[in-house]
This record gives sequence, C-alpha cells and structure tokens, in this order.
Amino acid sequence: MLIVQKYGGTSVGSLERMRAVAERAVMCKRDGNDVVLIVSAMSGETDRLINLAKSINETPADRELDMLLSTGEMVSASLVAMTIGSLGHRAISLTGSQVGIMTDSVHTKAKIEKVVADRVEDAVKDGYIAVIAGFQGITSDTSDVTTLGRGGSDLTAVAVAAAINADLCEIYTDVDGVYTADPNIVDSAKKLDKISYDEMLELASLGAKVLQTRSVEYAKKYEVPVVVRSSFNLLPGTLVVKEDLDMENVVVSGVAHDKNQVKITIQGVPDKPGIAAKIFITVADKGIVVDMIVQNVSTDGKTTDMSFTVPKSDQRQAIEISKELANTLQAKGVVVNDDIAKVSIVGVGMRTHCGVAAKMFKALSDNNINIIMISTSEIKLSCVIDAKYTELAVRELHKTFELDKR
Amino acid sequence: MLIVQKYGGTSVGSLERMRAVAERAVMCKRDGNDVVLIVSAMSGETDRLINLAKSINETPADRELDMLLSTGEMVSASLVAMTIGSLGHRAISLTGSQVGIMTDSVHTKAKIEKVVADRVEDAVKDGYIAVIAGFQGITSDTSDVTTLGRGGSDLTAVAVAAAINADLCEIYTDVDGVYTADPNIVDSAKKLDKISYDEMLELASLGAKVLQTRSVEYAKKYEVPVVVRSSFNLLPGTLVVKEDLDMENVVVSGVAHDKNQVKITIQGVPDKPGIAAKIFITVADKGIVVDMIVQNVSTDGKTTDMSFTVPKSDQRQAIEISKELANTLQAKGVVVNDDIAKVSIVGVGMRTHCGVAAKMFKALSDNNINIIMISTSEIKLSCVIDAKYTELAVRELHKTFELDKR
Repeated sequence: MLIVQKYGGTSVGSLERMRAVAERAVMCKRDGNDVVLIVSAMSGETDRLINLAKSINETPADRELDMLLSTGEMVSASLVAMTIGSLGHRAISLTGSQVGIMTDSVHTKAKIEKVVADRVEDAVKDGYIAVIAGFQGITSDTSDVTTLGRGGSDLTAVAVAAAINADLCEIYTDVDGVYTADPNIVDSAKKLDKISYDEMLELASLGAKVLQTRSVEYAKKYEVPVVVRSSFNLLPGTLVVKEDLDMENVVVSGVAHDKNQVKITIQGVPDKPGIAAKIFITVADKGIVVDMIVQNVSTDGKTTDMSFTVPKSDQRQAIEISKELANTLQAKGVVVNDDIAKVSIVGVGMRTHCGVAAKMFKALSDNNINIIMISTSEIKLSCVIDAKYTELAVRELHKTFELDKR
Repeated sequence: MLIVQKYGGTSVGSLERMRAVAERAVMCKRDGNDVVLIVSAMSGETDRLINLAKSINETPADRELDMLLSTGEMVSASLVAMTIGSLGHRAISLTGSQVGIMTDSVHTKAKIEKVVADRVEDAVKDGYIAVIAGFQGITSDTSDVTTLGRGGSDLTAVAVAAAINADLCEIYTDVDGVYTADPNIVDSAKKLDKISYDEMLELASLGAKVLQTRSVEYAKKYEVPVVVRSSFNLLPGTLVVKEDLDMENVVVSGVAHDKNQVKITIQGVPDKPGIAAKIFITVADKGIVVDMIVQNVSTDGKTTDMSFTVPKSDQRQAIEISKELANTLQAKGVVVNDDIAKVSIVGVGMRTHCGVAAKMFKALSDNNINIIMISTSEIKLSCVIDAKYTELAVRELHKTFELDKR
C-alpha cells in the first residue's frame, strides 16, 4: 500500500517524539508499504514565531508572516528525515515548494490549486520515505511562500494523498479518533469506528479539532480514505470514508461545540435588496468565512439588524470591515458579542428522520438554555448559546440522543 | 546609488538590533538610494539548529542539514522585512530560491553557479527594500536547498550585488573594518581605510574573519566595490577595491593568524609520480580545501611523508580519507597535529620588495618560534607554528613591519 501519514505538532514536539514518528514510519515501510510523511511544526514553534512577529508589528504583513511560519515545518521535516536516516532508512525532506503545492495568493489561509508531487513519487519510487513540510505552499505566479491556515498540514496530507493516489491517509494526532462528543466534557463519549465525509465535515467545521475542515472537503472530493488515530498508541482510530447504508440508521453521530466564534451585529441596516449581498461580499473578499447569518425581521419596515458569526481569529478584521460598512450604509452601529458558543448535533440519519430539531430545542430549553441563533443543514443542527452553558448543553444533548449507548 | 547591505548574525541578533538594521536601511533609502539587504541567521540560531541535528545523528545527511539551516536566514529575512514595514516602508523578504541563487549540489558548501535576481530588481523597481535570506541557494537541477558554507551570507551579498550591478556592497559586521592585525591580540592594530581584493583575499583565507574568502574572490572577479563596516556605529569602515598604485608602496598591509587548521601527515608514502595527485584529488573530491602542502625529501629514495593542512571543520572527514588512502597506498600511517596555528603577513608591495621573507623568519626565530611549514604567494607569506606562540608571533610581526605606524 502507498500510505500518507501526517503527524501534528505534539507528535513531533520533541526529538524523542520525532524518534517515535520515525520508528512508526520505518515500521510501516518494513511491512512492505511505501510511506510519505507530512509533518507540522514542533508544538509551540508556530506560536513562538507568531509572537516574535507580533512583538515587531501587531499586524505584520501576511506575506512575511507566511515566510516566517513556513520555517517551522521545514525544521520538523528535516529533523524527522535525519531521524529516519539515523534508523538506517533513506529519507528526504521536501518543502511545499519542492513538492509543488501550488496555491492562490491569499496569504495565511491560501487555497491549494494544484499539487504536482512528481518529486514525491520519484522519491517513493527510489525507496525513500519522503518527509513533507506541511501547512505550506507557493503561489503559482510569483513563487511566494503561502500557508494554508491553522491545521493546514491535514490539508497538505490529504492533497498529497490525492495527488499520488495513496491508498490511505493517516492523520496522527494526540487523540484516539473521532468521538461522539469531546471526552473532556462528556465522560461517556464513545470513539466512532467509522464516519462519513459529510459528518466529519460538519464536526470539523463545528469545532471538533481532530481534522481541519478543508482537508475533509478535499478528501471527500477526491475520495481519499482518511484515518484519524493517535501517534501515542497503536489503536486503529476512526476511518473517514464515503457514506454507506448502515450509517443512515444512526440519527445523530456526534455532538460538537465551538467556542471560537464571535457574533457581530450591524444595527439599523437599510432593509432593501442587495444590502446583505454587499455586506457578505465585502467580508468574503477579505477571506473571512462567515458561519451563521441572521437577518432580523424589520420592525419599522425601513431598517433591520444583520447578525453573523465569524471565527475569533478574524474578529479584529471583521469588526473593522463591519464598522466601515456601517458607515457606508449609514447603519446605526456595530455590536460585538464574543461570549457565545455553538453547540451542534450531526448525523447523516437526520436526512431521513424527523423530529430531531424539536428534540434538540427541548433538551436545551429543559435546561433553561436560551437559543441565540439557529442554523441547519441536511445533516446538522446548530444553536448559538451563551458560552457559559456550553458544557451543560453538550452533556445534555449527548444524553438526549443516547450517544453513550452506541 | 543602488546599495546592497549585508548584516551578519550579531547585527540581527535580537529584535532591537533588527530595528537598528531596519532604521539604517530606511535611512539609506530616504537618502535617495535603492537598498537591498542580505541577512544572516540571528546569532546563535545556526548553532542551535546544528546542535539539534547532531543530537539526532552525529553526522546528519548534508542535504537535510542544509534544509534545516536555511530556515535560520528565512526567519531573519521575514522579521527584518516586518520591522521595516513597522517603520512605514515597504519591504519584501526573499529566499535564496526566490532570488534565483543557483548553486552546484555540494551541500553545506555549495558554489554559486548563477544568480538570476530578476525578482530583486523588480522589487527595487517597485520601491521595495528587498530583504534576502543569505547563506542559501538551490540546485539548478533538483531545486534542493543548499547552503554556501560558514560566512556564506557575504557571498550572497557580493553575488547579488554583482547580479543587479549594485554601486556598492556594504558588509556590516561587529568590527569597524579590516585591521592590520586582530585588535584583540595587538593593541596598536590600525584600521585600514582601503585594501585591495588580493590582500583582502589573503587576509580572509588566512583567518581574518571579517569577510568570507569566496565572497572576496567573487567581488574581485566582478569588480564589486565592497565596504566592511560596523553595524554598531557610523564609522566609514574599510573599502575593498581594485589595486591602485599607492597600495604598492606598502610592503605589508596586515598580519593574520588562523588557529583553525589541522596538520595531517601521511607517513611512508611511496615516492613515485602520481601519488601526490592521487592524494589531493581524493581529498578535493570530498570538497575539502587543502591549504598548505609539504612533501618531505625522501631519505630512503622509496618513501616520503606527505603533510597538509585542512580546516578543523573538515578534520574528521580528512582523517578518514587519509587513513583509507594510507591503506590503499600501503603507507605507514597517519599522524594528526591539531595544535598548530598559521601566522601570515600580507601586502601587494611584497611583489616588488625583497627581503620580506628573511625579515619574517628572523622575527620568529628571534623569539624562539619554530617554523613547522611555510607557504608563499605573490603577496603573502605564511608560517605554521606551535599554537601557543600565536599571539606572540602576531605581535612581533606587527612590530617588525611597523604596522602600528601606518
């Protein structure tokens, strides 16, 4: 088999941990597989570099930040390659540029446009374990270094796996797999053996931190079989694959929560066609992903309030844009609430089962938890609530949908 | 003017120092110049990375080491670019790869084959201060990251200056310029205002650490005017240029010393044609630069001893090769002496003045310093002596040639 293994920051967080990674890779190779590794920066390194940058300039140029941050993964890749070498196996480290991970030029959160990967295939053919610096790419036009956003190494792994047509993409992390809820909050949370791309996608975008959202989208698109497993033990992990029939019998697969959102409200926006489009095109142009949107019913027929949530990391920029927009639109002002959380239930079975929403709302209301915003998709249901109720809500929903009995 | 400024590790050793560098660059730009910076890794960073590598593998693969080390300069370049940005000027960091510094594939001491530099010229044209990561390049065939050897950032600076046809290449360091001798050893050492490429070349290769040898060769070849000056003050430094007439009136310009050499002797080598060639071709093939060579007079007509010196950094490899050679040639054995130093006098005036050698030998012998090896060039004279006499020899030679009276 041709196997891509991705190791996150804690998995390569020290020279000892790197040795464990190298041993696992070599073991996999000795078992007769071809192995390609994707590594993140050593844990803490990316933050260290960001802090260096911020002590120079609170808002450093994104292009320069990418150049800076990309070094963290290069260091890991070369050290892991050396470690494999010290175990007597041939290994070669490769940067995003050398692999040919071509991206757009939206620095700090670039999108992969193409993966060439000839160099990786050649290395594998020659018997090397290729060790690829995750999280990074280059722009096709100017060869500027880009990064793929937090968790971008997952995307590197899946994209490389797709490009070289790997049989399996293993994402090694510090948890055993995907759980029915965060085990730190719900003691009875169960590990899932298998989950569909769509469910994983919802869970990932809802704050389950095991896999980066875009990597799941990419895996789904190219049907890359992904396994999420721990680098600290030999447990099999959770397989993320195409939906199959018995998945549909499960109404809710998991409960997710996300405290990393901020709610921004532009008050007193003129209530006429095109305004919402104007707002969200402006925000999207800055590369900010808006999650939930609520347009209040207009009470005076002339103006309305427009609320939306964005990731906390985009808070500063989103508020800035909103204030400019409020000005341009002659709106009343901008209100920010960063003390919110989103709790969600996810399951492909929701497509064919009814009454799920009612059950969720009741569970929340039975616990006196007020719902601030609601959003739905075919296979998920999310409610924004007061942050302080997060843990309570997750536990109650886990119980309500009997996830502990799976 | 189009000015290239190179800042070494101590000059960018902290965020405060980086700010000083950025301010100097911006000042130069505000004076109406176009400015290109070359930066080294923050002081200590390269050693930190090497230690990391060595704690994995005492002899890590050179290719991987280059990948690892190249990150040090990338970090500096992006941080300096951010710092310039924080001063309100536009700056863009560039890696060796982005600049187009094409090298051969002798990792850890690659030779520059070509510098494209279009990207640098474009940046300058667009009003940016380009901040280039020194010390690194890429191989033209495989785009592997290479490094240019210790002090390689000097070479980057000169090569880029030549490629973009810069008017001046300023090498900023922690000393005020080139001295008649190491001021740490000779109190009365004087700073030189001007020195020829050839003299600088000899001084550099003799261990005067202000400029890397190859960078001087490169500067000479492309006639790049180089200034060596301090980043800690505004003193004018030492100009390194083409030889002119009044330089010839000075017999000796400086005294240099180098404790970084090891003497290796292959004993009992068959005394027949082709043997010396075989030895030194083998050594050169490994990229090791042999400095002095002495072939002893054969006493038995059949065998001889062959001694040569190499930089201490190549010691391990050179000894290994020598032992293999001794075996192949059925020589008696290999003896190593690493307790030696080389003291040298340098001056273009030596070409036209005689008696210089005699004067040097007398000064050493007057102080009971035994000469172990001698080597000469048109403009320099070097003696290998016991390491313990280094300081004494330097002081006495400085006095003998009246360098304190310049």
